[in-house]
This record gives sequence, structure tokens and C-alpha cells, in this order.
Amino acid sequence: MTSLQMSAKEEMVEKFLDAAARGDVVLVTAHLAQLPSVINQTGYSGWTALMLAARNGHYDVVEKLLSHGCDKYLVNSSSQTAYDIAKFWGHRHISNLLSRTDEGSQRVLLGSEVSPQENYFSREMLDRLSGKRTDKTWLESKHSDPDTVYLMFSKLNPMVSMPQEDDGGETKLCRFRYEAVKDLLQKPATVLIFLGVEKRKNPSSSSDAVQEPPAWFAIGSDEDAVELLKRCREKNFCFPKSPHRDLLKLNEEEAGVVAQARSVLSWHSRYSFCPTCGSSTSLEEAGYKRSCLNSECRSLQGVHNTCYPRVDPVVIMLVIHPDGNQCLLGRKKMFPAGMFSCLAGFVEPGESLEEAVRREVEEESGVKVGPVNYVSCQPWPMPSSLMMGCLAVAMSTDISVDESEIEEARWFPRQQVIDSMFKGSHPTFSVPPRQTIAHQLIRHWIGINSNL
Amino acid sequence: MTSLQMSAKEEMVEKFLDAAARGDVVLVTAHLAQLPSVINQTGYSGWTALMLAARNGHYDVVEKLLSHGCDKYLVNSSSQTAYDIAKFWGHRHISNLLSRTDEGSQRVLLGSEVSPQENYFSREMLDRLSGKRTDKTWLESKHSDPDTVYLMFSKLNPMVSMPQEDDGGETKLCRFRYEAVKDLLQKPATVLIFLGVEKRKNPSSSSDAVQEPPAWFAIGSDEDAVELLKRCREKNFCFPKSPHRDLLKLNEEEAGVVAQARSVLSWHSRYSFCPTCGSSTSLEEAGYKRSCLNSECRSLQGVHNTCYPRVDPVVIMLVIHPDGNQCLLGRKKMFPAGMFSCLAGFVEPGESLEEAVRREVEEESGVKVGPVNYVSCQPWPMPSSLMMGCLAVAMSTDISVDESEIEEARWFPRQQVIDSMFKGSHPTFSVPPRQTIAHQLIRHWIGINSNL
Ligand SMILES: [Zn+2]
Ligand SMILES: [Zn+2]
Repeated sequence: MTSLQMSAKEEMVEKFLDAAARGDVVLVTAHLAQLPSVINQTGYSGWTALMLAARNGHYDVVEKLLSHGCDKYLVNSSSQTAYDIAKFWGHRHISNLLSRTDEGSQRVLLGSEVSPQENYFSREMLDRLSGKRTDKTWLESKHSDPDTVYLMFSKLNPMVSMPQEDDGGETKLCRFRYEAVKDLLQKPATVLIFLGVEKRKNPSSSSDAVQEPPAWFAIGSDEDAVELLKRCREKNFCFPKSPHRDLLKLNEEEAGVVAQARSVLSWHSRYSFCPTCGSSTSLEEAGYKRSCLNSECRSLQGVHNTCYPRVDPVVIMLVIHPDGNQCLLGRKKMFPAGMFSCLAGFVEPGESLEEAVRREVEEESGVKVGPVNYVSCQPWPMPSSLMMGCLAVAMSTDISVDESEIEEARWFPRQQVIDSMFKGSHPTFSVPPRQTIAHQLIRHWIGINSNL
Repeated sequence: MTSLQMSAKEEMVEKFLDAAARGDVVLVTAHLAQLPSVINQTGYSGWTALMLAARNGHYDVVEKLLSHGCDKYLVNSSSQTAYDIAKFWGHRHISNLLSRTDEGSQRVLLGSEVSPQENYFSREMLDRLSGKRTDKTWLESKHSDPDTVYLMFSKLNPMVSMPQEDDGGETKLCRFRYEAVKDLLQKPATVLIFLGVEKRKNPSSSSDAVQEPPAWFAIGSDEDAVELLKRCREKNFCFPKSPHRDLLKLNEEEAGVVAQARSVLSWHSRYSFCPTCGSSTSLEEAGYKRSCLNSECRSLQGVHNTCYPRVDPVVIMLVIHPDGNQCLLGRKKMFPAGMFSCLAGFVEPGESLEEAVRREVEEESGVKVGPVNYVSCQPWPMPSSLMMGCLAVAMSTDISVDESEIEEARWFPRQQVIDSMFKGSHPTFSVPPRQTIAHQLIRHWIGINSNL
């Protein structure tokens, strides 16, 4: 750009700001049509058109600027937003207009327009109410409440009703009432976990306000699965044999409940002794704490993670070829024939997510990784991982597989991945199902730099 | 926009694409000056100007388009990038030009231009070489290697040389050679952890290729700290008494090493018994595994997290007021007078990062949160957390503090935070030091929507 063009643009910005300050909505509109990028330009002391219109009470100009997508959160050199200015000068109709937020304007506040997708196992239909875990009176009143819902687990798997072969429906959790399980609750080997209360879908409704929403508990029983199933008359009730497959058939809400219950139950099944001294422990805080029964134990002085459920952070990443049009996928021997997935691994002590991505990719495939971006995460209750999904860009392309980890790793062209995901046209190549974050990361990548 | 303007723009796009396809670099340049947004527009079958120029071998047009910042990773409706097209048609000088990557063009591949900052405790100066942890011969040869570096820890804290009062320097790790510690390595209560080998700063240098870089180990000793200090003649060597303060004075590289070593050592100090059966365990894999000594134990069948170091995921978040110009900070009783920080809490089993942010903020402050964005993370070896830093937007503004968690929470105007961080002008209000991710999140927020 020449300096002549620069000053022509500066002149236009000045005229635009002046029109906004004077409330000339016609001229403001004309400037926006001619040069849309003028909208967030600033003049003296960092004032934008929106700030000037807000200062002088020009409601129609503010409305026009907002409708053209101006950034209402910019601050001037005194660190005031247009909202602050409107409020200070008493233009309440304008400050009210500026304080209205939608998803889009909220995201501007975060410096990123991307809304993370919701992954399977991550929806929360219950409010965990962790403050109630130490309230024994409240918990006891909920135990025998006729509205309370109990889920039954055997060897970490929930009792479910499987869809009949011909109805193609979804797997559903079996819900029990107090009367059906009260004998089980008395047994010393039973583990009882408070999951939360149902979230109110319409918090302002007056009938909800009177009645407390139902509480949910998970029962981990050591009774024989056959005995437990006798509690129901239905023939299609069962405990899934293959959680990695069967627990992916729930609806989103029940999947979120199972993620919570199964993770906590698996902690109890593996951590019933104190790791610090080897003594037995007792279950406390509605299933969220185990305390050592040895009164001399160090774990009773101060707060220690030995007493609380364990969550293992894992990185899972889609590595993109420097040419932008291929991605790196690998397969383990245990995968179904033809299936390839994202690389993944546990985060090590003292390691950041981004470094864990670089280390795991290089260890497993020999590929060196540069920039890494977090995309979204997924709780994975097998037994209690938190999968942190990332995209990463490769800095090298030669593959050298660590055979103790994966059987094969390959660069796949974008078109082949698209064909496999959307057209099913590659019988010899598939990616994991949509419930997995690996699938969602691949979908996310396909959407970037794409004209589709 | 009127339909007349629409077709005027379409006509301009057509002319621009045609100029690119014909190799008319003067006309391409003129169009870009007149309407910069034309650069990534597509015509028939999703072809961009870059693709057309690449197809027809017009090197100068490709160069011009790249210098104006066009997106070279866009794909046409056959899912080809300009690079793929140039390669297919044999224009090697163009495909070479298109395959060159810089940080900026790599970030385009990730769908996000933001580069996460590096936090204290997260730099990795060592290559962990986790594959060598099971290679006993290699490890033994490194033990007695004169280049090997040993760090000494007592009660989880490393021996350091503290800066003299008048030199204002940094705290430094004391590095020992094999001869100085070989008696300690023989003691049964000593825990020895392989940390990794030094990363090569210049991998292509030929002298480095001959000699293996030095290996680093951490020694966790149960010897009396006074005895350990007698190994050195220096007066200013010591074991920090207050890790939360003293371990923040290392340089970035040594901080990363301490994060790794301290997290693993703290796992050994708390997890020396098998949580599944209560038996003793033995240390394996160079300090990264503990196996149960009871041959009947379930933990020996299959892979179980009980045998591996624990990392606790934590969310730490800066909550932004819906007006965009205030942030929510809280203080704990243990904080220095006047200090406020971001809210934080452990991720629960079966919970996503984003849900953990919403739950913790509502529990601690009563404020409801909408959109959440991950910004960066920090390993925090007190004892072994992974702090996941997020920005979040409030949906409500009334504060109601859970006094068992925090003493006070308040909305702070942006200007007050800026004054405190950069001018030190608020003696009654401060934020945590720059080594903390809380500080970095606040800085990150100040940079968004700011004309500064
Ligand atoms: Zn104990
Ligand atoms: Zn055991």
C-alpha cells in the first residue's frame, strides 16, 4: 500500500467515526457497505464507532453496528468498553442492548470462535452436588426416597436392557427403586455411590421449585450376576460382557451417568487398601473418599490424593502431514481388521499436554511434531481416563513404528478418509465409531481448510 | 448487500480467477489491492486462484498469492490442495514452494492461529527415552558413566544452591557425578529414577552424533538432610523448606526437570503398598512402575493403573463477566494478604474439562458459566497435578462463596488488574507471580479485545 492510500483510508475512518458520533445512521451504513473492515477501527484514545455512538446516546447507530458484527468488547485507552461508556453516561437503553449476550458474542470474549463439540460419555444430566456428600442426614433421607433412582453394577458393568434384535433400538439402563434394592444396601460388601440429582430442565418452573429433583445412586454389588438378574422379570436384561462395545450403545445422557459411576466403582475395586501403609480403608463421603483405618498412617495428616478417586489424563491426537492433505493413523493388533485410529498415550508426571503429544507420536511412529492444539476431551471409563483430543502438525514424515505399541502406522489422504467415513466405500479401511473422540477429531480435521 | 452488488462481486472473483489461471501477475496484484478478500474465493469445483496458478505452472502468481497470505491448505471439490495439483502436473518448482512451512502456515492446519504460551515447569530439556526404562544393560552403563548427572532429593525437595542475598541470582540445582553418590545408590531405601538424556540442541552437528548425550537421574534418599549436605563443601547448598515458593526460583529448564522428578518421587513416597491387596511392591522400569510382590494379586493380571505414577488433572479458570470488562478472582485464607487468584479444582471421574470448570465455579462462587475454552496447561509438582488453564464466560453475576473452599470472591475491573500487574499501583490487591498459570491466564485475558 502506498502512503497515499494509507491516508485515504485514514480519512475514511475519520469520516466513519464522525458519522457514528453524530448519530448519522445513513452515512454509517454507507461507509460499512463501501469498506466493511472500517467497523472496528479506532480514533483518538482508542475510541471505536460503537463507543462514540454509545457515548452520545445514538441507539440506532449502536444497533446498526452490532448487526454488522462489530466487536463490542474492545476497550479504549482508559480500558472502557462501549457498555461501560453507555452506563457511565446514563444511556440505559443502550447499555441494556450492549449487555445482551449470545453464544457468538460470548465466544469473542474467549479470543476464539470455535465451539468444542460434545463427546459421548461427557454429557452431565445430573448435578453432582458434591457439597451433599458429607451431609449424612440428607443422604439417608434420599436413600429411602421413593423417587430415588438406583443403578446396579456387577464387575463394573451396569444392568441394562439390550435392544431386541429386530427393533434396532438403544441399550437402556435398568432403574430400580428403594424397595427393590434395600436388602442389597445392607450388605457390607456393597459399594454405594451418590451420583447427583437430576438437573432441572426448566429451573424457573414453579412446580419444580417445590419438589426436589430425584437423586441417583450407583450400587456396586459383589453378588453373583445371575442372582442380581433374578430381581427383574424381563428377559432382555443383562450385564454387558464387552464394555468397550456395549457401553457405546446408550443414549448421550445415560452414557454420561455410566462414565461417572463406572470410573468411581473401578477406583474402589482397585484401591481398597491404603497405598501409603497397606492397611484396610473405609468408604466415606458417599463413595468419593477412602480413609486409612490405621490411625498412625501419614495419609491421615493433611490432604493426600491416595484418599480420592484417580483420573488418568491421556492425550489422543490426529497428526497432520505438512502438505495439509494427509493424516497419520495407526492400528493396534487388537483392532478389528482394517481399522485405523489416532495415536494416544498417558500423560507422564511433570509433562504438559503438548509435550505428551510430541513424545507419544515420536515414540510410536517416529514422526516429529511441531504445533499442537487442544480440540475437545472425553471421559473414558475404561477404567477412568480423561482423553484430551488434540490436532498436531508433523515436522517430519518418515514413519518408524514401535511394534510393542502399534502394528502399523500410515499417512492417509484426506479423500480416502472422507470416503471411508461418509460413503463407506473403503471396505479395507475404517475409522473408529462416532462415539469415540478419535472419530470426532478426524471429522474436525476434515472440516478445516475445506470448501465442503 | 443488494443482489446487484452480489453479482458485481461475483464478476470480480471470476476476473481474478481468470487472471491467476492465465498467469497475469499484474492483474492479480491489482485485484488484490482493490479487494483483498478475493484471495481465497473459489470458482468452478472449488478451485481457488492458487490452485489455478499451480495447475498452469505460473510460479510468479503462486508466489504473489502466498505473499498476500492466501490459505494454501484449501481443498477443491476433489479434495486436492494446490500442492497436490502442482505435484500431479509435474510443476516441481511450484510444489516445492508450496511445501515450505513456517509456524504461521502450520497453525492454519490446526484451524486456530493462537500459539499457546509455555508455562513454568513445562519446558522439557530432557528426552525421556521411555523405551530405555526396561533396558537394564543400557541403564547400568549409564549409572557409572562419568557424564551422567545425578540430582539429590530429600523429602521430595532437590538440593539447590540458593542465591546469595546480594547477588539477586537464581536458585540452581546441585548436580552430582557417579563417584559422589555411588554409596547412596547401594542403599536399599534409595529410590532411583531415570529422567532422560539431554536433548541435542543441534542434532545435525557431527560431533554430537558420535557421543551420546548425558543421562540424568534423580535420587530420592531417606538419609538425614544434614548428612546429605555434608557431601558438598559449599555453604549455600540446601534443601528448600517451602517448595511452593522456593521451587519457583529455578530457571525454566531446571524447573521442568524438577517437575518430572518431584512428581514421580511423590508417587513412590505415597504408593509403596499395593492398593489392590495391601502387599509390598517393588520398584521397576527405572522408577516408573511398582509391581505387587503378592503373586496372587489381581494387579498382576493385565495392565492396571495401580502400577503406574499418578497424575491428577485440575482445572484452573479465569471467569469473565458478561460485560467483558471484569474477571472473577477468589482468595483462600492461606494466600498472602491482598492476593487473589483464579478459581481451581480437581477434575472428577467421568467429567470433561469443560464440565469440571462449570461445576467448580458454581460450587465455589455461585456463578453460572457458559462457554469454556482451553488456553494452556502447567504441570504442578505439588505433588503431581496437571493444571489445565481455561477462560470461561459467566452467565450470571451474583456471587455466593462456599466458605469451606475460599474466603472471598469478587469481580475485578480490567483496569484494576492491569494496574496491579504492570504498575504495581494497587498495594492492597495483587495476583499470583508470573510462574503460575493463574498469572498467565490473567495476562492472556488482558490481551483479548484490547487495543493495547
Ligand atoms: Zn494408611
Ligand atoms: Zn497386590
